Amino acid sequence: MYKAPVEEIAFTLKHVAGLGPALSEGRFGDLSEDLVDAILEEAGRFAAEEMVPLGEAGDRQGAKLGEGGVVLPTGWADLYRRWAEGGWNGLALDAEYGGQGLPQMLNVAALEMWNGGSMSFTLGPVLTMGAAEALHAHGAAALKERFLPKMVSGEWMATMNLTEPAAGSDLGGLRTRADRRDDGSYRIFGQKIYITWGDHDATDNIVHLVLARLPDAPAGSRGISLFLVPKFLVKEDGSLGARNDLHCHSLEHKLGIHGSPTCTMIYGDGKFGDEPGAIGYLIGEENKGLACMFTMMNNARLAVGMQGVAIAEAATQKALAYARERRQGKAPGWTEAGMSPIIEHPDVARMLVTMKALTQGSRAICYACAHAIDMSHHLEGAEARHFAERAALLTPIAKSFSTDIGVEVASLGIQVHGGMGFIEETGAARLLRDIRIAPIYEGTNGIQAIDLVTRKLPQSGGDHVRGFIEELKAVAVAVDASNRPGFGETATRLLGAIKDLQEATEWLLSKLGEGALAEALSGATPYQRLFGLTLTGAYLAKGALADGDDRREALTRFAAENLLAETAALKSTVTGGAASLAAARAVLA
Amino acid sequence: MYKAPVEEIAFTLKHVAGLGPALSEGRFGDLSEDLVDAILEEAGRFAAEEMVPLGEAGDRQGAKLGEGGVVLPTGWADLYRRWAEGGWNGLALDAEYGGQGLPQMLNVAALEMWNGGSMSFTLGPVLTMGAAEALHAHGAAALKERFLPKMVSGEWMATMNLTEPAAGSDLGGLRTRADRRDDGSYRIFGQKIYITWGDHDATDNIVHLVLARLPDAPAGSRGISLFLVPKFLVKEDGSLGARNDLHCHSLEHKLGIHGSPTCTMIYGDGKFGDEPGAIGYLIGEENKGLACMFTMMNNARLAVGMQGVAIAEAATQKALAYARERRQGKAPGWTEAGMSPIIEHPDVARMLVTMKALTQGSRAICYACAHAIDMSHHLEGAEARHFAERAALLTPIAKSFSTDIGVEVASLGIQVHGGMGFIEETGAARLLRDIRIAPIYEGTNGIQAIDLVTRKLPQSGGDHVRGFIEELKAVAVAVDASNRPGFGETATRLLGAIKDLQEATEWLLSKLGEGALAEALSGATPYQRLFGLTLTGAYLAKGALADGDDRREALTRFAAENLLAETAALKSTVTGGAASLAAARAVLA
Repeated sequence: MYKAPVEEIAFTLKHVAGLGPALSEGRFGDLSEDLVDAILEEAGRFAAEEMVPLGEAGDRQGAKLGEGGVVLPTGWADLYRRWAEGGWNGLALDAEYGGQGLPQMLNVAALEMWNGGSMSFTLGPVLTMGAAEALHAHGAAALKERFLPKMVSGEWMATMNLTEPAAGSDLGGLRTRADRRDDGSYRIFGQKIYITWGDHDATDNIVHLVLARLPDAPAGSRGISLFLVPKFLVKEDGSLGARNDLHCHSLEHKLGIHGSPTCTMIYGDGKFGDEPGAIGYLIGEENKGLACMFTMMNNARLAVGMQGVAIAEAATQKALAYARERRQGKAPGWTEAGMSPIIEHPDVARMLVTMKALTQGSRAICYACAHAIDMSHHLEGAEARHFAERAALLTPIAKSFSTDIGVEVASLGIQVHGGMGFIEETGAARLLRDIRIAPIYEGTNGIQAIDLVTRKLPQSGGDHVRGFIEELKAVAVAVDASNRPGFGETATRLLGAIKDLQEATEWLLSKLGEGALAEALSGATPYQRLFGLTLTGAYLAKGALADGDDRREALTRFAAENLLAETAALKSTVTGGAASLAAARAVLA
Repeated sequence: MYKAPVEEIAFTLKHVAGLGPALSEGRFGDLSEDLVDAILEEAGRFAAEEMVPLGEAGDRQGAKLGEGGVVLPTGWADLYRRWAEGGWNGLALDAEYGGQGLPQMLNVAALEMWNGGSMSFTLGPVLTMGAAEALHAHGAAALKERFLPKMVSGEWMATMNLTEPAAGSDLGGLRTRADRRDDGSYRIFGQKIYITWGDHDATDNIVHLVLARLPDAPAGSRGISLFLVPKFLVKEDGSLGARNDLHCHSLEHKLGIHGSPTCTMIYGDGKFGDEPGAIGYLIGEENKGLACMFTMMNNARLAVGMQGVAIAEAATQKALAYARERRQGKAPGWTEAGMSPIIEHPDVARMLVTMKALTQGSRAICYACAHAIDMSHHLEGAEARHFAERAALLTPIAKSFSTDIGVEVASLGIQVHGGMGFIEETGAARLLRDIRIAPIYEGTNGIQAIDLVTRKLPQSGGDHVRGFIEELKAVAVAVDASNRPGFGETATRLLGAIKDLQEATEWLLSKLGEGALAEALSGATPYQRLFGLTLTGAYLAKGALADGDDRREALTRFAAENLLAETAALKSTVTGGAASLAAARAVLA
């Protein structure tokens, strides 16, 4: 049974990701460490006590499409109301619209716990938060006034409508149409797929953000606009009006996250209203919709990264509990009577320690990303720009590495359980089924790798990433200088990994400079993992340095002497694998 | 839709695994290459045309437990009859009992195709074959006469009953009891779990092989006996008699292989018959049951390895077909109008080529294992002993590496499909759900690694594995001597991997020699992967050397210059990871 790792979360926030210094420098006004601790504690309690039981049952039951629309699993609508009433939805949203304006760091820490409680349930709020941010950043004042306060309070939930059958990773192929109306609104016509929480019975209205194309829009991604399309129209006085012409046509039958309805949405087929066309309101400028959507996608990407962390944590807790109880065989050195707990077997211990290290590494990466986002908002000028670049650099890594780790750790968790792992009632398999979507949605991890290499590395002419690598080196140097024998070979191995990262980075920058895009992209995914593993080593070390606990030291050493061994291979694949990949395309013909 | 890769299978058998030389040396009597080709062709046709459609539908429907026992999915009983009538069940079984006595190499090649057609369906026959082998090797003549011909023809199916709630990897904890009866038979009492095809409606009798303990048996694994316990007793004249006192109590709700019934079996609770106790017949000697069971487990392990190969092949075919059709974005160098097929994107190409290389590598390892089994039967004296050691060495690698690859490739297959990969109707997710059991059953891959390190490496004082490594080196030398530029850095990289394997092997042998078991076992799993990857490189190279096709060369080069980069990390983890793992156990406390 998942228990929110509140202490570990607080430690990572404060001593690894930068919350401690930010608080003591007063970056977040009068936010105190005590308040932080109280928020984390209460979020953890809510996740474990209220979400876990309903989450598990709800995923067994699944969301259903009935006559009147989608019905969430039993108890979820009520769970959502209690959660929203707790003020959790607006935690990091603007105080002007009713939010609490707290740092993203706290929000992602809470998100980790919600996802640990129930990933399927938490998907709904995540989408609402992202939509609220996009509307806040790009919407006209009147539109914000009418919709934002209820999206911030959670009274209305919201969705993102991007994907269509022919427009997934490449939104340029988008076909949904928006016709201008005389009153300044638009009529939307089209089909959207994979719409998470596209319909449900938790709130009395749902605010859809929909990408669509004007009749005279340029082709491709420069002709896409963003619209706000409510399920029910909202009158001047804020009360609900007529049903808008949109509905959920069907639900997907998915590998996992069965409690979360994944909808095919139909806009403007005339099912509702007096004439066909769902009424929508432009957000931002015409044809600039993609830029508006990217606002919410960046935070959504980090939020998906948190799913990876959360599921990895849940899988580790579950496997650890099982491995302590289950007895089979006699491990080397086992002298007591009877069989040993399987945790005593070196192979099982290796799996569990690996799970721990990867979970904590991916957590630190995500929190560091949130820290950068916060600093980009709370600092100014060059400092703000520096952290904006840091956030931009870390976002694809946080999304891709953490979700890959989520899958890897969930699969290891099944393995630790042996035969029980394959039985659904155990719950270990569900974690793998649920998290397997995370490397795919919000931009596949391959797309993240393209983003990382082609857009993030070249920031400030490559100097941003170079500076970041120097920061990592300083951690390794500090490990070396600490002279703590428990670190073993950590300093050497970490420096080696950082050197691999540095060489791979320079190679990629030089290929980009030459315009050799295919070569650079051939190794983008291995590079992304190289970055994530090196950060894992560095952040674990940073935590261990901040703390006298031998266990952090030992975990860091394990990561450095085992997991970081992979970085040399990854570097070699990045810098030396392109030619052989090009030649091997012949086998795909 | 899965299509049996008959040509690739035939090539690997003949030119990589050793079937070609064995045929030309007349090791298999008058078996000709033409007959081999005809058998493979027909097996491939049956798998693709008859198994695929019923397999997919059957996994959706699932096996059900009704009043009268387990009911297989619609059409499966009939599919089984057609399959058995084709003579496939007895392909490699003894001609004396009605089998065809063909080499294991052909049998595993056919098994690959059956599993590609339907893994859930094929599980039934695999268990029957294993049980027939165990009975053949250890049963008394009268018992064999009564049961074996119908098990060979497939008229009756059979099962393996090992696991109990407290006895999984360690069978020493087994509690099922066998009481002696005056007539030389036994009464069996107990509960067995995870019994694959433990009950069904495909045959009118089911022959259960059951491990149980005599009342006066020594404790632990030296007190286990093997019994044949038929669902229906068999009269002297071979006709069916009374229902024996055993039944399927419940079916497991599993992550995958839903068409395959996984039963909890109850023996001797008095549900059937005039007095409680299922009637069983001893196979082999009392208290020597584990040795008898190991006969069937070794071949079953290779058969599970084939599941990994088959699912990897199916996943690769499916992903390749999708990646050729699906268009998104513009890949570097794409000059045609519109979006490019995603196969043109370097990241997608990398996934697909990796899938191809790992699939072909694991196939070659399994076939080489089957070759060694065949040679150990068809040669004599020292030669036979040599190949028996080779088979023993390769079995844990074939089982573990291929099943890990099955999971890895199936997961990559989902990723290639993007959002579609998470939708059950696509079929990509089912492959992952199905294959996830394979690293667990028939001895978890961790157990395989313990077997590999502690029992297989020390064969002939370590000289067997040393000799094998020299054979691999000869392949790398031949690549070097070939001077074919398409091989790129293959020779150097392959020699490097072999050196890593050699060093890791010597380190493990020396630790075993010192009695430092915990140290040796700390790296057993990474060692197993190191061995599998190195073999992948060597066998791909062997195939490419045997053939003028540039594509084999290119695939070998890709594997050598990308996948083999991992071997240095694995070696370093094997030889340098134990101390840090031991220290990190503190974090599990």
